[in-house]
Amino acid sequence: MIEQYSLGHYCRHKVNLIDSALAQYTPADAYPPIIYDAMRYSLVAGGKRLRPIMLMAAADAVGGCGANYLPVACGLEMIHTYSLIHDDLPAMDNDDYRRGKLTNHKIFGDGMAILAGDGLLTAAFGTMLSQPNVDSAILVNVVKEIAAAAGASGMVGGQAVDLASEGQIIDAKTLKFMHQAKTGALFKAALRAGALLANASKHKIEALTHYADHFGLAFQITDDILDVIGTQDKIGKPVGSDMRNQKVTYVTLYSLEGAKQLAQQAVDNALVSLSEFGSEAIILRDLVEYLITREA
Amino acid sequence: MIEQYSLGHYCRHKVNLIDSALAQYTPADAYPPIIYDAMRYSLVAGGKRLRPIMLMAAADAVGGCGANYLPVACGLEMIHTYSLIHDDLPAMDNDDYRRGKLTNHKIFGDGMAILAGDGLLTAAFGTMLSQPNVDSAILVNVVKEIAAAAGASGMVGGQAVDLASEGQIIDAKTLKFMHQAKTGALFKAALRAGALLANASKHKIEALTHYADHFGLAFQITDDILDVIGTQDKIGKPVGSDMRNQKVTYVTLYSLEGAKQLAQQAVDNALVSLSEFGSEAIILRDLVEYLITREA
Repeated sequence: MIEQYSLGHYCRHKVNLIDSALAQYTPADAYPPIIYDAMRYSLVAGGKRLRPIMLMAAADAVGGCGANYLPVACGLEMIHTYSLIHDDLPAMDNDDYRRGKLTNHKIFGDGMAILAGDGLLTAAFGTMLSQPNVDSAILVNVVKEIAAAAGASGMVGGQAVDLASEGQIIDAKTLKFMHQAKTGALFKAALRAGALLANASKHKIEALTHYADHFGLAFQITDDILDVIGTQDKIGKPVGSDMRNQKVTYVTLYSLEGAKQLAQQAVDNALVSLSEFGSEAIILRDLVEYLITREA
Repeated sequence: MIEQYSLGHYCRHKVNLIDSALAQYTPADAYPPIIYDAMRYSLVAGGKRLRPIMLMAAADAVGGCGANYLPVACGLEMIHTYSLIHDDLPAMDNDDYRRGKLTNHKIFGDGMAILAGDGLLTAAFGTMLSQPNVDSAILVNVVKEIAAAAGASGMVGGQAVDLASEGQIIDAKTLKFMHQAKTGALFKAALRAGALLANASKHKIEALTHYADHFGLAFQITDDILDVIGTQDKIGKPVGSDMRNQKVTYVTLYSLEGAKQLAQQAVDNALVSLSEFGSEAIILRDLVEYLITREA
């Protein structure tokens, strides 16, 4: 199903599909406009669309067609976007900029931003459950797994630990849980969802699960590194916010050099997980290699 | 399936089932405790459990067994509870008390309260999708309908209009939309879910849909009346908050007497909708009659 073996081309193509679908799920004439405007503001604010792309790339890697699963893929992006809106609130990270734009609450106010996040989270589930041409029992399992990854034992739980840990000394074990839950869980759910929707074998699902674990780790370490060495211009938000918020990160725990080594190790492990896949997994290989060289 | 024809007995029995199930879905040893504690605080804070009871009563009314649908029923209660947590935040209604207890953010802080709401909303979908012994295609449709009712075109949209309307003059039409969306939509989804899960005929589903519309209206008008004539002791939160927040309500629009008449009319219409049901709908009849005599 993969016709182009360039990561850039693959991603641009998929981003176009995702952006069109997202626009369709939150149409400009939806009522009441006051909430849809706030939801749309953050949903169309760009971003790498990494989670939906990973779902599609996983489906492609197991011989399916990722583009067939846009509703579930876009649901993941809605979940990601809602989490950013709530995370940026004054009661949480208190960030004024995101992806180079003013954050949702700076435009719409705190109350409407909370509701915009709630609306996107709810729309995510409605959209995912509208996925056609998939056996309903499989769809139920996939969406249930995404809910687990996004919820209190996953992403929301990771953010809760993060919030409660500000200004506290936490150990490496807690840091690892926090990041696995906060970022890794949804990556893993995205990859597994793609494989499950495309009816992959148990063996391939297991391999992709291992890949996901290493991918998530590499992603988080790189995020921590970028917060130190990135530029506001490129990452679209002020750098150094972790330090200002007295957050424990991979850089504060292992130094910049140590964090870079850990990231490379995670990338290597991710690639090993894919060793039984052929060229159909090239996007997944390129994605994780790109990860640690990215500048935003 | 209904063995007891007393509303009080029926509700107490169902509340016990619901409370046990809710405790099971958010177990005391769930990790990380920091978020589950906050979720549990509001989830076990009591409340009438009206939405899950309505789902079960609708299933009973069409000849099914409501108690078989606890996962979907409890998902509705989680959605309701999350909406209260977010609604009480300083950025929204800024209420310190709810159901006679300090509100979630007064105990856990604004950030954790936002996350507790997010966790409950996400858990609602995970829990609903774990519903056993229902055809997956039916379950997908039911949960999709609940998502629509809870989301930006439903409950969240109603709250957004409510938030944006504070201190503004809004007309009766906007008020009606706001309340239908804010409260009525989830009641309707609860009743329809019960009927759909129990494989009701189209005709019965339609009758219950009409009942739901009138029920929701009666409920909201009564809420507005209680905010004026209730006592903090009974409704568990300060009375008069609508007036303080300069909200347009049925009482401000139609006077107290006019609002009471509208409520009675809605109850009468709800009862007419059930005219083709026999004694199996007695709970639904008693529920709507109880509505306008309630003190909290």
